[in-house]
Amino acid sequence: MIDIAIIGAGPAGLSAAINGKIRNKKVVVFGNHFSTSYLYKAERVDNYLGMYGVSGKEMSEQFVSHAQEMEVEFREAKVLEIFATGESYTLNVENEFVEAKTVILTNGITKDNVLVGENEFLGKGVSYCATCDGMIYKGKTVALIGDSAHAEEEVNYLAEICEKVYYIPLYKEVQKVDERIEIIKDRPVAIKGENVVNQLELKTQTLDVVGVFIIKESIPTTKLLQGLEIENNAIKVNNYMETNMRGIYAAGDCTGKPYQVAKAVGQGTTAGLQAISYLHNN
Amino acid sequence: MIDIAIIGAGPAGLSAAINGKIRNKKVVVFGNHFSTSYLYKAERVDNYLGMYGVSGKEMSEQFVSHAQEMEVEFREAKVLEIFATGESYTLNVENEFVEAKTVILTNGITKDNVLVGENEFLGKGVSYCATCDGMIYKGKTVALIGDSAHAEEEVNYLAEICEKVYYIPLYKEVQKVDERIEIIKDRPVAIKGENVVNQLELKTQTLDVVGVFIIKESIPTTKLLQGLEIENNAIKVNNYMETNMRGIYAAGDCTGKPYQVAKAVGQGTTAGLQAISYLHNN
Repeated sequence: MIDIAIIGAGPAGLSAAINGKIRNKKVVVFGNHFSTSYLYKAERVDNYLGMYGVSGKEMSEQFVSHAQEMEVEFREAKVLEIFATGESYTLNVENEFVEAKTVILTNGITKDNVLVGENEFLGKGVSYCATCDGMIYKGKTVALIGDSAHAEEEVNYLAEICEKVYYIPLYKEVQKVDERIEIIKDRPVAIKGENVVNQLELKTQTLDVVGVFIIKESIPTTKLLQGLEIENNAIKVNNYMETNMRGIYAAGDCTGKPYQVAKAVGQGTTAGLQAISYLHNN
Repeated sequence: MIDIAIIGAGPAGLSAAINGKIRNKKVVVFGNHFSTSYLYKAERVDNYLGMYGVSGKEMSEQFVSHAQEMEVEFREAKVLEIFATGESYTLNVENEFVEAKTVILTNGITKDNVLVGENEFLGKGVSYCATCDGMIYKGKTVALIGDSAHAEEEVNYLAEICEKVYYIPLYKEVQKVDERIEIIKDRPVAIKGENVVNQLELKTQTLDVVGVFIIKESIPTTKLLQGLEIENNAIKVNNYMETNMRGIYAAGDCTGKPYQVAKAVGQGTTAGLQAISYLHNN
């Protein structure tokens, strides 16, 4: 059983993690590799006190190295959903299920656009994880919508097992995609079907597919955890980074503006300490 | 006219200041020398992300050097009181008056103990600043109550101009006090008088004095700024570090627990950016 599961490996997540480690808690950080972050790509960051004139890359590296020095456990994996299970929470980590006593959400800004039919056909042809559900579509025709180059690994995996794979990238530069894949630069409009998916409608054409994978850089928070209170598109927290759900905390950009490293790190510390205090009292 | 006056030169204050400078605002930080802070004395701080295994002294020095690199103006002076004056605020800086459009309070944990008679005789024999009011008591007998070695400079000044000076230190190790001063290790109980002060009552004796100086490491927030909303002994702020008064922000330990560097730095950033946004809209 994990004491503190942290969703997101940015400044807020790592800050929460080091505080958990200092107090000897079992902490696991789930997230994308830090080199995929916005911070990593920033040319220069001057307003994180104590580090003057460093690049986003240098800052990210110092953050990660701090977490590594303190032996923070990091898993480069996507948490697809979090369920309340009695006193604790169960995390679906790419279809492996792990339990945690507390969860700190540091998943950044998530886009909550939902396609027509996306909710209706979830689990009936719509999936958020090719690695998890790909085998269901072995030998079939599917489409994958990806919002970042991070999705390419997933679509390449599908190319190996599916009969035909369409890839709809929602970003500019496609990097390395298997040549068996048909890339279509178009805007998704709706997912259609009867009971199960049979079509993906794009702006200028319609694809006959039995599966639609939607791979987002981050899972929208509202999909990740049902029942969480959201206000102005951000997770609602009090001054102690508590959400409306017991044992669930949030920190960083996912709690709203300002989108700043220092604010994320500070909130991460507060959330980490609050989770520890919860563990001691429950 | 100062754009952003910052009360306190700890992590929260410096973090607010560098953000103000980045946006080209006229920022002045008022505070004690950083070497007097709790942080400076910490043996090791491991939970400020990006700086692993540093001493409080090293961390403080990096913070100050960051602020200096960005040419933050620092004044080693005590702000005694803040008054609302129309659209802006007037600060009493050791009896020099300066104006500011916005104020960020980062004055740390302040103790709000008030002696019997302290409020009643304020300005009638009770003073919070020897440098400011000392000359009034030239050739007279006074007492000075100090809660840290920082008060010794003030009491030494009084020794030069007053007939007789009693010093009541509320801390353990008295460092360097003029030999004309009589040191009394006792607990202050009440300030007495008729219209003006004539006695300081201690637990085991009573001193005949016409002036009582009370020198605290930091002015209690409730004395500093009237009308500020306080909750659980901390300045009440929302997620944007706004207090109940327009143009007044607070960050760091003065807003309550946890008392952590990262939280102070993060709140300082938020308060700084919020003050900037206020300046642009007013």
